[in-house]
Amino acid sequence: MTELLSPQALEDSLRDIGATRYHNLHPFHGLLHGGKLNKGQVQAWALNRYCYQAAIPRKDAALMSGLTDRELRREWLHRILDHDGFGDDPGGLERWLTLTDGLGLDRDYVMSMEGALPATRMAVESYVRFVGERPTLEAIASSLTELFAPTIHRERISGMLENYRFISDDVMTYFQRRLTQAPRDVEFALGYVKREATTPERQRAVLDALRFKCNVLWTQLDALHSAYVEPGRVPPGAFVPEGNA
Amino acid sequence: MTELLSPQALEDSLRDIGATRYHNLHPFHGLLHGGKLNKGQVQAWALNRYCYQAAIPRKDAALMSGLTDRELRREWLHRILDHDGFGDDPGGLERWLTLTDGLGLDRDYVMSMEGALPATRMAVESYVRFVGERPTLEAIASSLTELFAPTIHRERISGMLENYRFISDDVMTYFQRRLTQAPRDVEFALGYVKREATTPERQRAVLDALRFKCNVLWTQLDALHSAYVEPGRVPPGAFVPEGNA
Repeated sequence: MTELLSPQALEDSLRDIGATRYHNLHPFHGLLHGGKLNKGQVQAWALNRYCYQAAIPRKDAALMSGLTDRELRREWLHRILDHDGFGDDPGGLERWLTLTDGLGLDRDYVMSMEGALPATRMAVESYVRFVGERPTLEAIASSLTELFAPTIHRERISGMLENYRFISDDVMTYFQRRLTQAPRDVEFALGYVKREATTPERQRAVLDALRFKCNVLWTQLDALHSAYVEPGRVPPGAFVPEGNA
Repeated sequence: MTELLSPQALEDSLRDIGATRYHNLHPFHGLLHGGKLNKGQVQAWALNRYCYQAAIPRKDAALMSGLTDRELRREWLHRILDHDGFGDDPGGLERWLTLTDGLGLDRDYVMSMEGALPATRMAVESYVRFVGERPTLEAIASSLTELFAPTIHRERISGMLENYRFISDDVMTYFQRRLTQAPRDVEFALGYVKREATTPERQRAVLDALRFKCNVLWTQLDALHSAYVEPGRVPPGAFVPEGNA
């Protein structure tokens, strides 16, 4: 890329990345939402995804450690509050644990991450490192998968409630909450990126950052698919659903 | 050190470090509080110290990025709220700017940090890096200079109000607020360190971390003293008080 894109053209390019690389395109997503997985497979998804959820406040703190602008820190901070909770709000991570509780998983086991796939943990840690090491613009751009999240969350809520008798309304509050949180977050992040990516090099870096983040999410579903669907080879030490042991 | 100290003996050793290395022992501290500085020198102190204040939320975010324990993150988070502000509270950094405003310094100039001493900025950045790179135990231990802060804040409030006609009560709110915040913070951090430093190696690391932090503070006063008191050689590009130009 050698040409400077207009802010709108940059947004369009970012949205193109979502249209071709976001993990709603992964076959595991279709299986999950279409009711094609058994309870053990859904458990595996939920406990692996916990690792990602648990890393979110850490990556947001890593991002904030590089922010020299107080207003920007104050803006970004509410993401940590959303996930870790604040005051009366138990936070998104607690709501995720409500989901894993509802799936019959032991909370200590989930939180220990011992049963998570190594590929999940590596992907998640590479995300935290990316955000901590890259320039703020790229770190913020990597959050832009939230542009595509509301669609997947809506599909998830309706698909999972409809298709799994072991999923009830009250364990899906994480996603319900994200339906309002993610658009607010992404509006700020998208505005920032469109404003700050003022050279072709910075625009390329922004697009690469979003591709990287899509890879982080895709890799996690690949690992789940490989371990629990096809070929279904669970790596040594990882969670083995009951009945598969 | 080859012996394991009791938690109380560890606390005593930490307090010994404060008694021999905390920056209240630096001659600049005595000059500042004793009314021996002119307004330009106090301005130099305030605008340099702004760099340190501005880095505090970043170092706390760096620390949080390494915390895998949600409860610990929730505990640590209020430090960021204290400094950056939250809701109705404008925060400690804003209160520091009230002080620099009161000293007649241009706020944009202070916030740009352009006039700060290079040694100040290097010391401050080394602190942020230390906290981000070292194990959580050492990162937390480096905050323990707060054990010694209330004394210095009290001296500062009374000494500065008494001795400088250009210092009024309303610009000293930063320190008044820290009188209640610092003891609450340090109680948690000291408890954590005493509980977690369970081997001689970890205890040594904790003591070294506090020594490092004392060096961060001492270095800043050394640089101020050298630039603005004796020999009074202001490095190229740094703040030059009016009348000295």
